[in-house]
Amino acid sequence: MTYTRQNRAAHALRDVQITPNFLPHADGSVLIACGNTKIICTATIDEAVPPFLRGKGEGWVTAEYGMLPASTQSRMKREAAAGKQSGRTQEIQRLIGRSLRACVDMKKLGERQILIDCDVIQADGGTRTASITGAFVALKIAIHKMLADGRLAENPLTGSVAAVSVGVVGGVPLLDLDYPEDSGCDSDVNLVMLNAEKIIEIQGTAEDAAFSMAELAELIALGQKGIAELTVLQGKAFQAA
Amino acid sequence: MTYTRQNRAAHALRDVQITPNFLPHADGSVLIACGNTKIICTATIDEAVPPFLRGKGEGWVTAEYGMLPASTQSRMKREAAAGKQSGRTQEIQRLIGRSLRACVDMKKLGERQILIDCDVIQADGGTRTASITGAFVALKIAIHKMLADGRLAENPLTGSVAAVSVGVVGGVPLLDLDYPEDSGCDSDVNLVMLNAEKIIEIQGTAEDAAFSMAELAELIALGQKGIAELTVLQGKAFQAA
Amino acid sequence: MTYTRQNRAAHALRDVQITPNFLPHADGSVLIACGNTKIICTATIDEAVPPFLRGKGEGWVTAEYGMLPASTQSRMKREAAAGKQSGRTQEIQRLIGRSLRACVDMKKLGERQILIDCDVIQADGGTRTASITGAFVALKIAIHKMLADGRLAENPLTGSVAAVSVGVVGGVPLLDLDYPEDSGCDSDVNLVMLNAEKIIEIQGTAEDAAFSMAELAELIALGQKGIAELTVLQGKAFQAA
Amino acid sequence: MTYTRQNRAAHALRDVQITPNFLPHADGSVLIACGNTKIICTATIDEAVPPFLRGKGEGWVTAEYGMLPASTQSRMKREAAAGKQSGRTQEIQRLIGRSLRACVDMKKLGERQILIDCDVIQADGGTRTASITGAFVALKIAIHKMLADGRLAENPLTGSVAAVSVGVVGGVPLLDLDYPEDSGCDSDVNLVMLNAEKIIEIQGTAEDAAFSMAELAELIALGQKGIAELTVLQGKAFQAA
Amino acid sequence: MTYTRQNRAAHALRDVQITPNFLPHADGSVLIACGNTKIICTATIDEAVPPFLRGKGEGWVTAEYGMLPASTQSRMKREAAAGKQSGRTQEIQRLIGRSLRACVDMKKLGERQILIDCDVIQADGGTRTASITGAFVALKIAIHKMLADGRLAENPLTGSVAAVSVGVVGGVPLLDLDYPEDSGCDSDVNLVMLNAEKIIEIQGTAEDAAFSMAELAELIALGQKGIAELTVLQGKAFQAA
Amino acid sequence: MTYTRQNRAAHALRDVQITPNFLPHADGSVLIACGNTKIICTATIDEAVPPFLRGKGEGWVTAEYGMLPASTQSRMKREAAAGKQSGRTQEIQRLIGRSLRACVDMKKLGERQILIDCDVIQADGGTRTASITGAFVALKIAIHKMLADGRLAENPLTGSVAAVSVGVVGGVPLLDLDYPEDSGCDSDVNLVMLNAEKIIEIQGTAEDAAFSMAELAELIALGQKGIAELTVLQGKAFQAA
Repeated sequence: MTYTRQNRAAHALRDVQITPNFLPHADGSVLIACGNTKIICTATIDEAVPPFLRGKGEGWVTAEYGMLPASTQSRMKREAAAGKQSGRTQEIQRLIGRSLRACVDMKKLGERQILIDCDVIQADGGTRTASITGAFVALKIAIHKMLADGRLAENPLTGSVAAVSVGVVGGVPLLDLDYPEDSGCDSDVNLVMLNAEKIIEIQGTAEDAAFSMAELAELIALGQKGIAELTVLQGKAFQAA
Repeated sequence: MTYTRQNRAAHALRDVQITPNFLPHADGSVLIACGNTKIICTATIDEAVPPFLRGKGEGWVTAEYGMLPASTQSRMKREAAAGKQSGRTQEIQRLIGRSLRACVDMKKLGERQILIDCDVIQADGGTRTASITGAFVALKIAIHKMLADGRLAENPLTGSVAAVSVGVVGGVPLLDLDYPEDSGCDSDVNLVMLNAEKIIEIQGTAEDAAFSMAELAELIALGQKGIAELTVLQGKAFQAA
Repeated sequence: MTYTRQNRAAHALRDVQITPNFLPHADGSVLIACGNTKIICTATIDEAVPPFLRGKGEGWVTAEYGMLPASTQSRMKREAAAGKQSGRTQEIQRLIGRSLRACVDMKKLGERQILIDCDVIQADGGTRTASITGAFVALKIAIHKMLADGRLAENPLTGSVAAVSVGVVGGVPLLDLDYPEDSGCDSDVNLVMLNAEKIIEIQGTAEDAAFSMAELAELIALGQKGIAELTVLQGKAFQAA
Repeated sequence: MTYTRQNRAAHALRDVQITPNFLPHADGSVLIACGNTKIICTATIDEAVPPFLRGKGEGWVTAEYGMLPASTQSRMKREAAAGKQSGRTQEIQRLIGRSLRACVDMKKLGERQILIDCDVIQADGGTRTASITGAFVALKIAIHKMLADGRLAENPLTGSVAAVSVGVVGGVPLLDLDYPEDSGCDSDVNLVMLNAEKIIEIQGTAEDAAFSMAELAELIALGQKGIAELTVLQGKAFQAA
Repeated sequence: MTYTRQNRAAHALRDVQITPNFLPHADGSVLIACGNTKIICTATIDEAVPPFLRGKGEGWVTAEYGMLPASTQSRMKREAAAGKQSGRTQEIQRLIGRSLRACVDMKKLGERQILIDCDVIQADGGTRTASITGAFVALKIAIHKMLADGRLAENPLTGSVAAVSVGVVGGVPLLDLDYPEDSGCDSDVNLVMLNAEKIIEIQGTAEDAAFSMAELAELIALGQKGIAELTVLQGKAFQAA
Repeated sequence: MTYTRQNRAAHALRDVQITPNFLPHADGSVLIACGNTKIICTATIDEAVPPFLRGKGEGWVTAEYGMLPASTQSRMKREAAAGKQSGRTQEIQRLIGRSLRACVDMKKLGERQILIDCDVIQADGGTRTASITGAFVALKIAIHKMLADGRLAENPLTGSVAAVSVGVVGGVPLLDLDYPEDSGCDSDVNLVMLNAEKIIEIQGTAEDAAFSMAELAELIALGQKGIAELTVLQGKAFQAA
């Protein structure tokens, strides 16, 4: 059964809106909307580092992720009430933190930590990749705030990070899957790239049909195209901040 | 030391915006903004009741409350990561649930539960009262959805619920305290009323100076005025839904 | 349906017994019995303060509350076995701590903490208010112990704190509700006062019927009468310590 | 260094008081005081059994143990606030349950559970053995209540259970150690016996000096003497119930 | 800085030993040793499925992962004592479960669950991939036990699953990294394949240097070679079972 | 009903194998097999002590215990996934720690801690006593490592510790019970001795029939014989290390 996407081309991103400075209290923040997926991403500067880094003159970037109970089609259990974060939540926040650390020179950042929060207001697929894309802009705003106020002498950012999902649905390679596509896909790949050129993270899972090297290469090329477009949008949002 | 409020009168509410149908997945939802306090309130219909009500033919309304880590001036610890809800969170969500149950005829609601979620996006004082005011509209939208689709034959709502805080700062009675006022107040009272006429809940705390019956009466009158105004705004928001 | 109270007048307290120095190890302790409600209240002096107060030269008073599993009519689950304190428990212990802090000059107390424990041995309604009334005596005993041994130069107590519940049952205002009255009441108010004159905390909840300002004023007056009587009994118990 | 006990003979129990029916709500209850150790022991009948016994026609006896924070010389952390029971608490409550099950014919008890709660009000050594001695009386009261109201046709009790500690302090064998003796002992043995004749449980620990078989035999004989005396006191308390 | 591997070629696996039927109680079990990494993998058949599958006539495969505290170079904290599994642990056990589900026809398995346990006795890199390779053999043994005793009519296995890590160290692509190589690598990829032909899961992370599509293709080809060798070894171990 | 043991005499140990240096990373380690019970015991030296010992110049020995989920006949729930250690686990690890502390001069050990881990790979009764017997050898290896490298000037070991279970099955006293014997026994005693001469710990439980002093003496004598044999085997294993 072949799948034909309605409303947008197979190789098109959803409509993306990145609103900078969405929350007044955070050092950096955006609201990112990728179609119906909407996430508040914030960066908070903490002048202390985790114990394993104390006294080493190096910084750290870490992330937390959460979903509002009503963000999903059927209400999710609130993790704070359940008393623990799910394995999925922990997996995603580890991915966000790792992805963003890949573009930061920790020595230049100095002995401080940047805490990223990604909170999903509305979920329609691709929340982990949209979190990374949005959080990079929040991180950049927070870092430039420190450059502006003199806390940082040199820019620790070594590049630009963005992410997107790609997958095969009904045999057709698609860019930027929404929730119905993601649920019914044969396989999907989450791709995080530096400067839309090199791979930082790739996580590919065959849900129903294992994929060949050739299929993987096609998906990665499609993802790279989407990431190049997202990188431009990140730049514009940062300019508007 | 006397306190003079800037930008609005001592007896004025902050600017209030209630945006109905803010989230597409919930049965009822609003975004309520009271000045810089912004909260997403949703109502989700669950066709099952808690164990203690099974088979009794009566419904239930319960609430959960949370704050985004970056909603406050200095970032709060994420409760899901900490592994438990604070005492303050539990106290607030119990208050929200109790307040809303006061306007629902549980027999008419039938054996189903309505779950209220109040998630604070941005905090500047008065989050518990704004949660109640917003959640009532979300609840009403959800109930009217059930009336429209025939799941409910009769309206179980017995009135309208809204809430506001009042307090004394530097000897001056104030309506609808923002965070700096709340932090520096002599005493404050959270007031929940039915139809802007009768008291459902009153929680008064003297932080620095115990208050007399006369002072309490003055504060309650001030709160009732604010609740009357909020009730009108709730009605308009519901009409717009 | 009108309610007629058996065995005591509508405006009468239950029989109150406050036994000072009930436990030998605590710095201050009482057993308070209000009718069939019996609570052990203790005050323990800790020469350290919580982290947020370190180095500020100010003290703190905080409280914990618990119920023996067999204190209630049908056995309660043990919270230590369940692995967490209920929302109700946390709400009550926050109330006790806040109420007692209202009568202590924290600068005069100096950089030390007083830990209050209220453990319900037998429950028949009004455990939170009896906890406050008993805990004040335990606190006063502990403070006078420090005055006697020279650890305190000046008395940090700024007044006397007591609490009582009032409510409307079957349309009749009643002082000091027992458990059957509390379960069946239209509305009830927990009242905490300083020197039986001014309100420190008021928590009023309409269970079945919202109340007017006039009804609230009548209940507060009734509560104030009861608190005046309790204050006398606290004084006698302290004298006997 | 030889130890000479003040106030009582080396082979004497502390003063023991067992007050039956101490709490009105439990099916069986006592307050047991062994010197300055004071414990409330209750038995609650639950007409359901744990899952592993459902449908087998057999009953169960289980126990929980707790200490009031202020029961000890320096205040203990409240386990409910800490979010878990300590290893010591779990060990003790397992011991109490096992000891009492040894005197109950589970087929005669029928498919119901008896929950024992032992809550230490004041601790001065020997809380686990006093818990067992007191809990047996509470259990017997609860069982005779069921015999009286016809829920039980036949008495499931197969004997009488009591417990005591014995130990060597400064080379001297002592019966019924108080807290200072227990802290400074060379070795101590907790002994639980059926009908003051046969051993149900023995737990011996050499804190400072391992002991020989001969020393153990001497301690057991001393413990048996104490248990015989406790068994008489249990009988009197039950008669008074 | 170029890296030269000692003791084995850059494209060689470590010495692999798969000992079938290592534990007598499990339905299927192996001890897998990949160099100094040693893991006990077991498969336990549970004739019940998780709630979300009840009544659907389909089975499930799920996995848990743990490390002995002394398995690592410096002792790890015991997760059972810490009271929770780390994010890393949860991520790995989700990966193991997902990988094995890719080779099982859930309808043919029928309404039962297979629980996989992977417990690391000794860790020297590659524990997640060795867990998958070993667990597949344990799973196959358990399934053939059900085929032999008639519980299964038809083999639900749709292929063979194995996994390996590949990475770049000092610019050199390496197969099957040990712990020192993994700690110092530029990037590494965990690869899970079906029948050594198609990709089920790929997880690539650039620790120090993002990688290009060409580099990724080279690593995948190297991994595929290793997985082909592991698949042969799995077959021999199963024959020996 | 009398019980006749198959395959070995009533007073014989199971076949015991102690493999020293089983794990490369721990400071001391053994694999101990007592029949089908197999346990990995390790000792890890930690150059810090718990808070209550800081600055006192004394050391500490503590233990943790766990079972692989597949070690038992029907799979056990993983404690790390359940989020807590069972009461049984805590009781056993407290016993192991206490037993080993009895043979260590803490002043000679100096301000450092030795962490013992006992992980059951396969369980067939007697896991707590085999853990103690194995852990003593691991502890001795770790201590001799410190003597060899000069961290310790003097041997802190004051003797040799081993443990065994004895019990009565069908009226017959047996040494070293396996799981079926342990499940069906009238009573069993776990015995820990110093130098096979003196009792460090004795834990006797009558499951079905309380025992007399004479029966206890017989069991202890039988246990002492077994411990003497184990002590010889421990010595040989240590020599081979």
